[in-house]
Amino acid sequence: MKVCIIGASGHYRYALEGMQNDQSIQLVGISPGSKGESLEKLEQSISNLEIYPRKYDDYCTMLDREKPDIAVVNPYFCDNSKVTAEVLNRGVHAFVEKPLSTELDDLEELKGIYSRSNAHLAAMFGIRYSAHFLTAKEVIEKGRIGKVRLMTAQKSYKLGRRSNFFKRRQTYGGTIPWVGSHAVDWLSWFSGEEFRSVYALHSSLYNQDYGDLEVSALCQFEFSNEVMGSVNIDYLRPENAPTHDDDRIRIVGTRGVLEVCQGNVYLINDEIEGLQKLNLLPEGHIFEDFVRQIRGEGECSVTSQESFKITEACLKARISADTRKVIEI
Amino acid sequence: MKVCIIGASGHYRYALEGMQNDQSIQLVGISPGSKGESLEKLEQSISNLEIYPRKYDDYCTMLDREKPDIAVVNPYFCDNSKVTAEVLNRGVHAFVEKPLSTELDDLEELKGIYSRSNAHLAAMFGIRYSAHFLTAKEVIEKGRIGKVRLMTAQKSYKLGRRSNFFKRRQTYGGTIPWVGSHAVDWLSWFSGEEFRSVYALHSSLYNQDYGDLEVSALCQFEFSNEVMGSVNIDYLRPENAPTHDDDRIRIVGTRGVLEVCQGNVYLINDEIEGLQKLNLLPEGHIFEDFVRQIRGEGECSVTSQESFKITEACLKARISADTRKVIEI
Repeated sequence: MKVCIIGASGHYRYALEGMQNDQSIQLVGISPGSKGESLEKLEQSISNLEIYPRKYDDYCTMLDREKPDIAVVNPYFCDNSKVTAEVLNRGVHAFVEKPLSTELDDLEELKGIYSRSNAHLAAMFGIRYSAHFLTAKEVIEKGRIGKVRLMTAQKSYKLGRRSNFFKRRQTYGGTIPWVGSHAVDWLSWFSGEEFRSVYALHSSLYNQDYGDLEVSALCQFEFSNEVMGSVNIDYLRPENAPTHDDDRIRIVGTRGVLEVCQGNVYLINDEIEGLQKLNLLPEGHIFEDFVRQIRGEGECSVTSQESFKITEACLKARISADTRKVIEI
Repeated sequence: MKVCIIGASGHYRYALEGMQNDQSIQLVGISPGSKGESLEKLEQSISNLEIYPRKYDDYCTMLDREKPDIAVVNPYFCDNSKVTAEVLNRGVHAFVEKPLSTELDDLEELKGIYSRSNAHLAAMFGIRYSAHFLTAKEVIEKGRIGKVRLMTAQKSYKLGRRSNFFKRRQTYGGTIPWVGSHAVDWLSWFSGEEFRSVYALHSSLYNQDYGDLEVSALCQFEFSNEVMGSVNIDYLRPENAPTHDDDRIRIVGTRGVLEVCQGNVYLINDEIEGLQKLNLLPEGHIFEDFVRQIRGEGECSVTSQESFKITEACLKARISADTRKVIEI
């Protein structure tokens, strides 16, 4: 199975990790996905792994010459959609950085291209596969908190030093679609409910000269069956904090409350005494899951339908924050 | 200093505690504040304290005969406003269960009555005075998290067994104004910013036959200076949880993050290594603070202006949740 990587601005490491664990998958080519995009970090990574793919300047040429089975798409986020369209139009399976598009029009166009292709597509919602999130999912599926009613999710990052393309909405796409989309995915995945509407706020004040980049945001989603969920996002985690991120979710059900915090899972429900810290399931891996589907060995947990829907929900949240209006999803 | 208690459906215990600590304050009368309201719990409490005030059927008669300095107002929440009006119209200081009113019209009317009286008024935002919230307030005032940007607050209660008046919106007023108002107060108090707008959701599904009572809710407030804050509220805390409530707030600032959780205060900022659990300040007491103001010994932390504003913000949040519209505050 042949893989090309287009761009180096997102989570290509998922693919590299997956390839490390499966020698039958080979990285045959790399290229930038955006004008002026540096491949330096990617080249450093593959050199450390002693992998030597061919390097191209133009990803279309690479796709045409290498004819890969899978393309890993992670250019500047504004180009996710355009690159993925080229990939799908060649019948190549697309493993794409989220959000799939940074504009709704592009997303609709991509949806059409996808539906006419025979290729598979998944957005990189890889956090789902961490041991703590898989454990939380099992708790909910076993009914241990009853029906999900109210969810509050958190993404908190250090700002650190970031590529210049983060400074412009036009190239970055916004903090809700990029950082927030993971948490929006969790709300949908854990509840199993349909999105109804969103209202959001965001602010780029105090962003340390990062241009348009929003460093604080709040989203409030309404789901089917009067289920509700919020997402709070910030880039204000102090630089000396022990971890880069502080991902959390709290899920209140009719029978109990589940929390994921700092890689741990806590449960309190009507069966157990006090707050219980749960044993974790083994972690999974999104790229391996994606490859499994391509091989016909099962459906990838992150479906193409979800990848499109979460992107849509996030873009509508960004529009809501820009316009201060409630947006139907 | 003479005190009367009107009603027994709210937090009259604040006043009883305050009187225990100050022998110069005397409880002279009690009466129901709503038609059919039981005083049983209050009578049990004062009997345990060996206090023997006169008991009246009608609070207006009581006010006219006893001429108290302070009236503690806590009838069914729908009557808070009407009773407080009678109290203020007699020049008596009013220590009132929140929300001050359950309807905006009544709130406006009460505001007018208050402005024409010489009496003081405070809503029972007593949680502010707990050791952990006072500690958090000091951390913010000392600038240890920089400027407040993003707040997420939580109120989670056990449903337990509640009086029948909780079952009807008309008598209860709604979960956002009653339970949520504490958290809305924290957002305003900690940030020091002005309310701008609110969008909210609430649901009475799975409320165990409690009629109109909403058991899950989410509010999203926009403040001045692009500061934002959310409040998540539920009555779904399992009955066997170790505590009745699970109050929390997380406050993200430009220099650090502060959290109040389970009565503890945690700080991470650019000065300290890792997450620090702070030593707590001594707790305060809302009724004692209220009495101090009446004696001319300082201003009560909970001002009348805040009491009105928080009530307005909560009623507008409830209207937002009912109508699914963003409401200006």
